[in-house]
Formats: sequence, structure tokens, C-alpha cells
Amino acid sequence: MALATACSNAPIVELISDLPAFRPDLSAYFISALTSRCPAPCVYVCVVDPGVGSSRAAVALEADGKWYLGPDNGLLAIVARHASNVAWWRIDWRPRTLSRSFHGRDLFAPMAARIACGELGGMSPIEAGSIIGSDWPDDLLRVVYCDSYGNLCTGVRVSSLHTTGLRIMARGHALNRAGTFSEVPERQAFWYENSLGLLEVAVNQGRADQVLELAVGDPLEID
Amino acid sequence: MALATACSNAPIVELISDLPAFRPDLSAYFISALTSRCPAPCVYVCVVDPGVGSSRAAVALEADGKWYLGPDNGLLAIVARHASNVAWWRIDWRPRTLSRSFHGRDLFAPMAARIACGELGGMSPIEAGSIIGSDWPDDLLRVVYCDSYGNLCTGVRVSSLHTTGLRIMARGHALNRAGTFSEVPERQAFWYENSLGLLEVAVNQGRADQVLELAVGDPLEID
Amino acid sequence: MALATACSNAPIVELISDLPAFRPDLSAYFISALTSRCPAPCVYVCVVDPGVGSSRAAVALEADGKWYLGPDNGLLAIVARHASNVAWWRIDWRPRTLSRSFHGRDLFAPMAARIACGELGGMSPIEAGSIIGSDWPDDLLRVVYCDSYGNLCTGVRVSSLHTTGLRIMARGHALNRAGTFSEVPERQAFWYENSLGLLEVAVNQGRADQVLELAVGDPLEID
Repeated sequence: MALATACSNAPIVELISDLPAFRPDLSAYFISALTSRCPAPCVYVCVVDPGVGSSRAAVALEADGKWYLGPDNGLLAIVARHASNVAWWRIDWRPRTLSRSFHGRDLFAPMAARIACGELGGMSPIEAGSIIGSDWPDDLLRVVYCDSYGNLCTGVRVSSLHTTGLRIMARGHALNRAGTFSEVPERQAFWYENSLGLLEVAVNQGRADQVLELAVGDPLEID
Repeated sequence: MALATACSNAPIVELISDLPAFRPDLSAYFISALTSRCPAPCVYVCVVDPGVGSSRAAVALEADGKWYLGPDNGLLAIVARHASNVAWWRIDWRPRTLSRSFHGRDLFAPMAARIACGELGGMSPIEAGSIIGSDWPDDLLRVVYCDSYGNLCTGVRVSSLHTTGLRIMARGHALNRAGTFSEVPERQAFWYENSLGLLEVAVNQGRADQVLELAVGDPLEID
Repeated sequence: MALATACSNAPIVELISDLPAFRPDLSAYFISALTSRCPAPCVYVCVVDPGVGSSRAAVALEADGKWYLGPDNGLLAIVARHASNVAWWRIDWRPRTLSRSFHGRDLFAPMAARIACGELGGMSPIEAGSIIGSDWPDDLLRVVYCDSYGNLCTGVRVSSLHTTGLRIMARGHALNRAGTFSEVPERQAFWYENSLGLLEVAVNQGRADQVLELAVGDPLEID
């Protein structure tokens, strides 16, 4: 049986409104990269939860000294995949009042506060293999996030690629790698390793989503 | 004469940029629901203020241990309607420098800081009946807020309805009630009690504003 | 040689995502107005940085008791122009890990934390005349910022105008001055001195960007 580790006074970070709506299968890859370089201890509340109020379980993940809380819909599966020391818990605790449609506010946030205060009761250990997403791939060559500038972040860690100079096909456009935006002419599309370590497609001083007509969820290909 | 109650060290919450622009008549219903379940003491700065810089008064409302500051344009009227113990004040205090177009920053925010510090001077009690919006209905079956997912929140508290299973007409579509998003098929519209207790129209994994072609201010009907 | 002034315990303010993308030449005027009335000490992290990862320098500006950190691309030039006491520094310090595309996170934010802690090492004084933007005009009659309501803020300080009642030409529309939104009829365009002291074009209860078909970067004219 896994032993939960207290992380008193840890900051609580909420990851909700900016993640791809309804798509835990994409958000999972973004969350893993987004939080991988942040120092432990920390408690993350992650809510992409189209099944809120249904029978889907509420889970907590302890991964390399950080805690993640969210629905059992795959959202936390890739964090666990990329971590070294992992334990999963089912959240049994329930607040006195629980709305049917906003567990981020009513269940996950107060549970995160409990964990950040070192109170680790109200949870039962569960098997990693029973978690949704436990069979998903390590990396995903799809757009998993589009930022406010139109840059298209994929779910592929550049460190996972065998060669560094490969080309990416995006809707028929062959994209070469660049180190920074300013290395390519204005309005030209390219790919680069973004600040989270992920393969990202961008256009220098333009919007890659519009230039390449790509949206969250669309696949890319290695040339 | 009402006696103002100090609420030292209360947090200050600012409600500005996310509320329907230019529409205190709609925002009033959303603010009441949004803040009703938050614990006292608290000081809310509420700014939907198309008449800023005109002769409209600046008011403060003390309602069930919480303070609300804003323009006298109806914005705080429904909070008062739904509260048990209410007192209204006109804000007479003025800062040394007052811009003509941003009283949220120059007047309401520093006055909120004074109240949160327990300084209750610079205000005169006024009659509730003289406040704009004192004759508005308890609930409003219009879209009062559209969130980033396209969900359409109305100004009707579900607890105010006499029957629980009624249908809502939205631009000719008859909508049945559901408990959660996942209870209906993908792309189907329905209504439910949202996490604020309000009647909300939504589409499972879609945008109700686009599917139903409804916007903030539009009326709905009970079937 | 300039002497850096410590500002221990100063708050750190981050100005990134809301500024005009790729346009330090416009953002410079907005930043100067935005921060001019905020009290010292304060440390501002300013990142509009299309040349991130190129050879452009990272600089710090000490202006009237406030610190500004950002790229040497003109972004901080107008703050310096409008200040009385100014000193410029090149940031030589580098973090252990520096991404090529996000110096806001990796370089400017931690350097701001060092300055806010009173640690002023890792910087070399540089000449004001060598800074990009040192030859830009004091004021700029272009749209430098469009807010969420569609109001069009220019880079002209109203205090710099010789006459107060002048008319502004915007795409063929002659706009008169008003004091507040509510002074003009609904849907009418006008100009006014906004809460930052800048000349702003707006429409009462409408969107000036749509009514006048103007966007960030577009020029206006004095009639």
C-alpha cells in the first residue's frame, strides 16, 4: 500500500480555464510539460471534466513529490507516465455541499487545501493500471494547446525524438526546425522546442493556427 | 439610521471585467448568485458603470455581513433583494485625484480598502426605496452571462421555480432539464441548475450561444 | 557611472500577455502611461519580445525610483523619456537554465526577484543614447492598445496637446472631445482623456474598433 506524503504549506495551483475544453486526452500532455519543471512541493488542481457529476471517480496523484487532483478521465495519466515515483488515490472525501456541475470549486479545491495543510485522510490507494489513460502513448503528435498568439503546441517532448533536424508536415506544409522566432523570415512557419520542452509549430510574427489552418486536436506528421 | 458594521481584514474581491458590458440590469442577477454562497465578511467592488463621471451616485450596500460597492444604477439592487439584513449608504468620500472615467480604480477600490480596514466614515445612510432597481423583479428569465464555453446563464434561481421538470423555450427549441452535461447526448441542448443555483442553458460538449443563437440580454420562455 | 538604487520588498508587476503582440514600438507608449501613476518602489517585468533568443540585449531601467526589466527593443524607451531621473543597465546575469524562447520566465522574472530583494549585481551601466527607441517621438498618434470593450487608446498624452478642444480624424470620421461616455448619445464615437491620461477614441455603449474599423497600429490625425 502506498503511503501518502504530506506537503504542508505547499502552494496550490489551479489549471482550469486555459486548457482545451472537453479534451482531457490532449490536456494530459500539456499538463505534464507545464508542471514538470516547477519545483516540489506543490498541489495542482486540474479540471477538464466533461463527465462532472457522472460516475467518473475523483482521483489524486502523487508524482515525484507533487500532488495533482482531478477527474479520472486521463487528465493526469501522462504526468504519471513521465514521473519516476508515482502513487494514485481515490478521493472518498466529500464536502457538505456538492454541486453536480462544478467539482473544481466544491471538491477538488477544498481537497487540495486539505492536502496542502498536511491532511491526507479521505483517500484510498488505487492501482495505476486501473486509471483511464494508463494505455495512452508517451507522446502525442497532435495540437494539444493553442496559445493566445496562435502558436500550436503538440504533445511531443523534443527530447523524445531520435533525430534533431527532422521536418514536420502540417496540412501539406513541410516545416523545418528553428531555434527561435527571429531566426526565420516574418510570416514563415517553422517548428521549435518551446519553453516547456514540447514540439511547437509557430509563425514568426503571425498566427500559425490561421496560416496553417490547424486547431486543437489536429494531427501533424513527421516527414 | 442604519449602523455600519466594521469588517476589518476582510478580503476585497473585484468584479469588473467579466460581467456583461453596459448592462447593470443583467449583471445585478449574476452578482447576487455569484456572491451568495461566499462567506462573510467580504468587500466586493462591482463595476458595470456606463454612467461613470455623470451625476449617478456611488453607493455601498451592507447585506448579511458583506459589503458591496458600486454605482447606483441597479447593479447591487438584486443582492439587496435576496438578502435578509440590508443597509444602503451613499459614498461621500472622494480621493485627492479622481479620473472622470475609471471610478473602479480611483473611488471604489480605495473606499473598499478603507472599509476592509474598518474605516466606515465618508458615507451617509440612504433609503432602500430610492435606489435604482428597487422595483426590478426577483428573478429574470434572460441570458445574464455567457461563459467562455458558451453556456448561457439566466437570472432565474432554480429554487424559485414551482415545478422542477418544466421545459424552457429558447428561440423555438424546447429544452428539457438535465442534472449534468454527461446525462444528455453530445451536441444536445438542455437546461440545468448551475453551480450558482441559476437556471442555465447549455450544450453537452458544444457552445449553447452558437447552437441556439442566443446572446447576453436575450429572453427565454417557460414552455 | 550610475549607481543602482535598491528597492527591497518592492512588489513585482508582470506586463506581458495584454500588450500588443510583436509591437514594442506601440507598447512603449502604453507602458509609460500605465505605470506613471503607480507609486515607487516597484519592479516591472515587461515582455513584448519578438526577438527573444536573438542577440538583442536584456536591459534594466531605473526611472524615478521604479525598475523596469525587458528586452532592448524600444519597449522601455518611452518610460525613460517621460521620467526625470533615469539610469540604464545591461543585464549580464544568466540563470542556470535559459530557454531560447521565454526569457520573461527564465531571465527577466528571476532578475526582477533579485532586484526586489535588493540584489543589484550582474548588471553593467549603459548609455541612454545607445538604447533602441532613444530617437522615438515623445507621443504617438496611433492606436497603441485596444481594450476588451473595443476602446482605442493612442500614445498621445492629452497634457501634451496645446489646445484642449481639438477634433480627431479617424478613418474619415471627425471626432469631438467629451468628458465621459455618458455625455454623448449611445453609439456615437468621440475622444476623451482616459484614466491613464492618454487620448482615447471610444463609442458610448459600443465598440470603437468595429464602428471606426481601426486596429492596433493604425494612425489617427488631428483635424
